Amino acid sequence: MKLEVIGVQGIPLVRRGDSIARLLVEALKRMGENLQDGDVVVVSQVIVSKAEGRMVKLKNVKPGLKARIMAEKLGKEAEVVELILREALEVLRFRNGHLITRTRHGYVCANSGVDLSNVSGGDTAALLPSDPDLSAKKIKNEIYRLTGKRVAVVVSDTFGRPFRLGQVNVALGVSGMKPIHDRRGEKDLFGRKLQVKEIAVADELASAAELVMGEADEGIPIAVIRGYKYEESRKPGGRQLVRPRDKDLFL
Amino acid sequence: MKLEVIGVQGIPLVRRGDSIARLLVEALKRMGENLQDGDVVVVSQVIVSKAEGRMVKLKNVKPGLKARIMAEKLGKEAEVVELILREALEVLRFRNGHLITRTRHGYVCANSGVDLSNVSGGDTAALLPSDPDLSAKKIKNEIYRLTGKRVAVVVSDTFGRPFRLGQVNVALGVSGMKPIHDRRGEKDLFGRKLQVKEIAVADELASAAELVMGEADEGIPIAVIRGYKYEESRKPGGRQLVRPRDKDLFL
Repeated sequence: MKLEVIGVQGIPLVRRGDSIARLLVEALKRMGENLQDGDVVVVSQVIVSKAEGRMVKLKNVKPGLKARIMAEKLGKEAEVVELILREALEVLRFRNGHLITRTRHGYVCANSGVDLSNVSGGDTAALLPSDPDLSAKKIKNEIYRLTGKRVAVVVSDTFGRPFRLGQVNVALGVSGMKPIHDRRGEKDLFGRKLQVKEIAVADELASAAELVMGEADEGIPIAVIRGYKYEESRKPGGRQLVRPRDKDLFL
Repeated sequence: MKLEVIGVQGIPLVRRGDSIARLLVEALKRMGENLQDGDVVVVSQVIVSKAEGRMVKLKNVKPGLKARIMAEKLGKEAEVVELILREALEVLRFRNGHLITRTRHGYVCANSGVDLSNVSGGDTAALLPSDPDLSAKKIKNEIYRLTGKRVAVVVSDTFGRPFRLGQVNVALGVSGMKPIHDRRGEKDLFGRKLQVKEIAVADELASAAELVMGEADEGIPIAVIRGYKYEESRKPGGRQLVRPRDKDLFL
């Protein structure tokens, strides 16, 4: 039982309208690699946002009063806070310099996932993709069209979390695989039902990918994971990882 | 940039007093593998607990009144709830069939990490290791003694989390490496400071390992990750991942 996590080097700066699948296939070719059936392709959210034109020039944003007041407390640009609020379904926490929201997709994260780094010139913000499951599906389908290979695709981002320090990479969008491996029916060595029941394997794949993505100075926006036997599925997977509010003990 | 995650097959049932390092080295030998300098060895908590004698026979546990009352609400054995309470620094949530505690180590998790599965006969509970950082260090040192190889060791367990469904494997104990990769000084492609600052790489390594650990029917209790360039450190690492209570926005 062995798997490989391959950082895809040489992906150029991504622009609106670029095909991530094509950039990936070309970069792999230059590396002397090819996609294989059953690979999991993990793509950093920021290049998906760029390709989908989810970039907003800050000078075109008119911050409202609420954004201006919050921005002062946060030490952020009011334009950025305005974008964060627009992307938020609700503000969950606003203190100690932190702004934690639930995004329109349902993700709970800092700043609605609005990102200023690695974006052209720094006066531009990247919003999360509108529908990361759909983004993942389109990349998966385009990979199939270009290569004939059936892969699973995870669109990932790096989130903080309660209780533990540091951020980890998680799956926002998932296509082609079940995001959760349900072991509830399985018994352990002694015939006792397993207590560990449902493993968020899509999140674990995203985390495994980050270990190579974070390595290079300039960052590596795509990783290919080979050898993981996922369960195929046609259902959008990212949204299955969102815990419903009424099942959350900490909200 | 490539890394490998190798599931170590053929680890026998672990008993009190066993040397995890020795079992690992012997199993790898049977697989035709060897440890290398710079490998990360991820060990599932439950075999560490077994080796360290952290098993408790339920018939030897006298549940108090509080445990008996809570057990009825949870649908658990009172003896198990008694152990959970003994392992807890505080009970954080107790509703909808869930008992979330902060353990004496500081981890926030369900049932203080007390585990009934994969434990001899099912009438026995496995408590978390008393000091997982020390457990990791001992395994690391014993590996060095047996093989002359310098590795990092992560003792891992599978935890649920707020906001997201499913459980992921995280690092309880870490030895030989920094658990968090601090990128706060780094600049992005455009010279702008990175927003993503501190990556909990030890947790990501644990999650990567789970992808092979969870595969086999009987489970694979150890994985070796090769090719990840961790930053060496002598400080106990697992405790550095615990978010202090006063820095937690959701407690």
